[in-house]
Amino acid sequence: MNLTDSTATQIRAACSAAASAAPVYARLPISHRAALLRALADALLGARETLVPLADRETRLGTTRLNGELDRTVFQLRGFATQVENGTAQPLLDDPAIPGAPPLGRQRLTRIAVPLGPIAMFAASNFPFAFSVLGGDTASALAAGCPVVVKAHPGHPGLSRAVFDLAAGCLAELHLPEGVLQLVQGSGVDVGLALVRDPDIEAVAFTGSLRGGQALWREANARPRPIPFYGELGSINPVVALPAALQAHGPALATALAGSIVLGCGQFCTCPGVVVVRDDDLGQAFVRQLAEGLAAATPHAMLHAGIRAGFNAGVARLHGHAAVKTLVAAPAGGEAPGAHLFATDATSFIADEGLREEVFGPSCLVVTVKDLDETLDVLAAVQGSLTVTLWGADEDTPDNHRLVVAAQRLAGRVLFSGVPTGVAVTAAQQHGGPWPSSTNAASTSVGYAAMERFLRPVALQDAPAWLIQRRGQA
Amino acid sequence: MNLTDSTATQIRAACSAAASAAPVYARLPISHRAALLRALADALLGARETLVPLADRETRLGTTRLNGELDRTVFQLRGFATQVENGTAQPLLDDPAIPGAPPLGRQRLTRIAVPLGPIAMFAASNFPFAFSVLGGDTASALAAGCPVVVKAHPGHPGLSRAVFDLAAGCLAELHLPEGVLQLVQGSGVDVGLALVRDPDIEAVAFTGSLRGGQALWREANARPRPIPFYGELGSINPVVALPAALQAHGPALATALAGSIVLGCGQFCTCPGVVVVRDDDLGQAFVRQLAEGLAAATPHAMLHAGIRAGFNAGVARLHGHAAVKTLVAAPAGGEAPGAHLFATDATSFIADEGLREEVFGPSCLVVTVKDLDETLDVLAAVQGSLTVTLWGADEDTPDNHRLVVAAQRLAGRVLFSGVPTGVAVTAAQQHGGPWPSSTNAASTSVGYAAMERFLRPVALQDAPAWLIQRRGQA
Repeated sequence: MNLTDSTATQIRAACSAAASAAPVYARLPISHRAALLRALADALLGARETLVPLADRETRLGTTRLNGELDRTVFQLRGFATQVENGTAQPLLDDPAIPGAPPLGRQRLTRIAVPLGPIAMFAASNFPFAFSVLGGDTASALAAGCPVVVKAHPGHPGLSRAVFDLAAGCLAELHLPEGVLQLVQGSGVDVGLALVRDPDIEAVAFTGSLRGGQALWREANARPRPIPFYGELGSINPVVALPAALQAHGPALATALAGSIVLGCGQFCTCPGVVVVRDDDLGQAFVRQLAEGLAAATPHAMLHAGIRAGFNAGVARLHGHAAVKTLVAAPAGGEAPGAHLFATDATSFIADEGLREEVFGPSCLVVTVKDLDETLDVLAAVQGSLTVTLWGADEDTPDNHRLVVAAQRLAGRVLFSGVPTGVAVTAAQQHGGPWPSSTNAASTSVGYAAMERFLRPVALQDAPAWLIQRRGQA
Repeated sequence: MNLTDSTATQIRAACSAAASAAPVYARLPISHRAALLRALADALLGARETLVPLADRETRLGTTRLNGELDRTVFQLRGFATQVENGTAQPLLDDPAIPGAPPLGRQRLTRIAVPLGPIAMFAASNFPFAFSVLGGDTASALAAGCPVVVKAHPGHPGLSRAVFDLAAGCLAELHLPEGVLQLVQGSGVDVGLALVRDPDIEAVAFTGSLRGGQALWREANARPRPIPFYGELGSINPVVALPAALQAHGPALATALAGSIVLGCGQFCTCPGVVVVRDDDLGQAFVRQLAEGLAAATPHAMLHAGIRAGFNAGVARLHGHAAVKTLVAAPAGGEAPGAHLFATDATSFIADEGLREEVFGPSCLVVTVKDLDETLDVLAAVQGSLTVTLWGADEDTPDNHRLVVAAQRLAGRVLFSGVPTGVAVTAAQQHGGPWPSSTNAASTSVGYAAMERFLRPVALQDAPAWLIQRRGQA
């Protein structure tokens, strides 16, 4: 299925409909907002038999993965519904008046949060359910009381339309304005630019490439009235495999890491792109086991030709690099790309920025280090990342303290076991790290704190009782 | 006292010292961090007899106001110390592991907040204590665990140096690194630009003009690694005086409003620059009373010649405007500027952007409206503001709902009584509104939530127990 690009008039109409719906939707009783989220979840579940095959035809991600992703998306919509019911989307902090002169004396202040208004949401190619039309950004914006204008990803146009039609049916059934969810589409940059520039859009949520995200972020800042831009961009997700962990579980960790690298053909923002190991017998054995695991892996085809071309260029760059050894490679021509493993030393890694760039796909670069200091130097050279994984840093030692501080400085999530792929939807989750992995490191695009992106605090001074009871939803 | 501009080398050294101090300061036991804040408060109090006269010589704000401002600054430092002791600066949210497959099954996730690192802080001219060297931005950054590099305001160089020397003494006494608080100074733009560009700076807090703030905000975004910029810029703070309020308390409200307009010679970011009244007998009586109050007021001299020149230009623009009537004016030449009151109608106000610009100083523009719809149109025309005041909107009526929604959309604080000047330091406070009143409407520069600007969430996955106990301060 091919969809025609939305015209400027259609984009304007979508944003205008969202703006008209915004005050109606924001004032909706909280139970109705939750009911919409639950209805959307039910609609997805009910259409599984149609949606998953359609998604598979368009993305080649396989029905097992896509069924799991649909379950995750349903779980997420229901989770946000529960948050709405619990009041998390409508926080209230009340400071009573204190008689007397300032600074102690004060009027009554009640801090609430108000929805920003229409959100532009850019769907991702690699999660056709979970980061697309009814994915996490949409669920969190709707939970926060904001309408959403989705820019469908051209990688799965038929699925985007089908899911949108389901959602439109839910809105109609619940007698909610169509403007609460709108869909625009475009394969070039123009539709995205028009959306970010639209005066009715109050914030942008984006998941995608560093280049595309940065361009749209600049556009959001260049508006006469700049708006928040929440971009989740590229990340190389370093894994540090310390001797203690390799001694205890080397082979199991090698198998787990190989699985994480090839999962979804490496098309995950949390795919581990760098593994840091000591240049000793344990480290060498681990790298051999990792290489065996990757050589035996059979990743599926990539999402589209553009991603594949980028991957081929990335591995070719490493393959031809004087300071890089190719440990596992596959011919560039097959339908699926095949896993790749490369190796370099800390000095070369630190010296060449090109070695620290993300290669989106099933490829990993081993960086061998002499000691802890070199490990820290390697981490200091890496740009902001979504995750850092530290295997074997469990003991309360000065060395581990230094590693933890370096990892926290670099990333939004620090793992002490397991692999970075697989991002749980929960209140404590943080999926967003320092620039350039995110444009706003204080925000998350996964988990319930994602709602905060679309709310703004307002302090009501001496507010009437009826308004406080309604948490400002006048 | 004149201070020489800091050289590029001095700025680099200040930022580098702050970066070296950052991990040491972040790891400090929480009681030590609180002790520093309390020691700074005590030092300010102890030096009142020297500092207030010095501040008065440099700013002409008067000793009553300056003593009050010093008290507020002390209160604020102690308030943040209490927040630190209560754990507010080190939030922790723990989601236990759930066995089983995702999406429900998950590893343990612990959400903490880590300090960003060195903060560049631009002191304001109009609050030589409360928004300067040891003001709210510094107190909140130190509470969050971040070192601060202050750019002193050239309007009060001697006071800035004296307060900084006190702070340096406190750091020495507590055996803390000098880098925890650094001071740079400069009367031109170069020092500010160098500070924002410095690679060791992790975020910027700014209070000042729209023009200066926007330029520095762009610079923060143009860095190779952009950083958060928290700017508190201009605002016209509309006051809507509804008939119900004027009927009940017209004369008292006129007196209060006149006092708020001339307070500190109008040099407050929350100074009410626009008052919206109905074009009826009550409204006309209120405007007459307001004019009498302002004609009788004797504001003190302004902070410096630049602010005065800006004020003169602003009132001249209104004075010469075809659609504006001058109700109160004073000759431009006196040492103090004298209060000004102007009037226009809703249509003219909406048609001309120039009428909606802030005039920083003791000036207010009356906008007469026919009805509620025109009131809403006037509010819709105003750009983002720190405050909106609604007098007489206490009843639970559809009209008041519409006003409240419009006010919340426009501002970070909505008042239902009193005047916008005077911003209490409390947990519920929100001093920051939609663009251009702030560069980040989700943040506040007054009140305890100001700490959040300098913290970033990190999710620890399967973290060892010792690390969770220390809330990530490894």
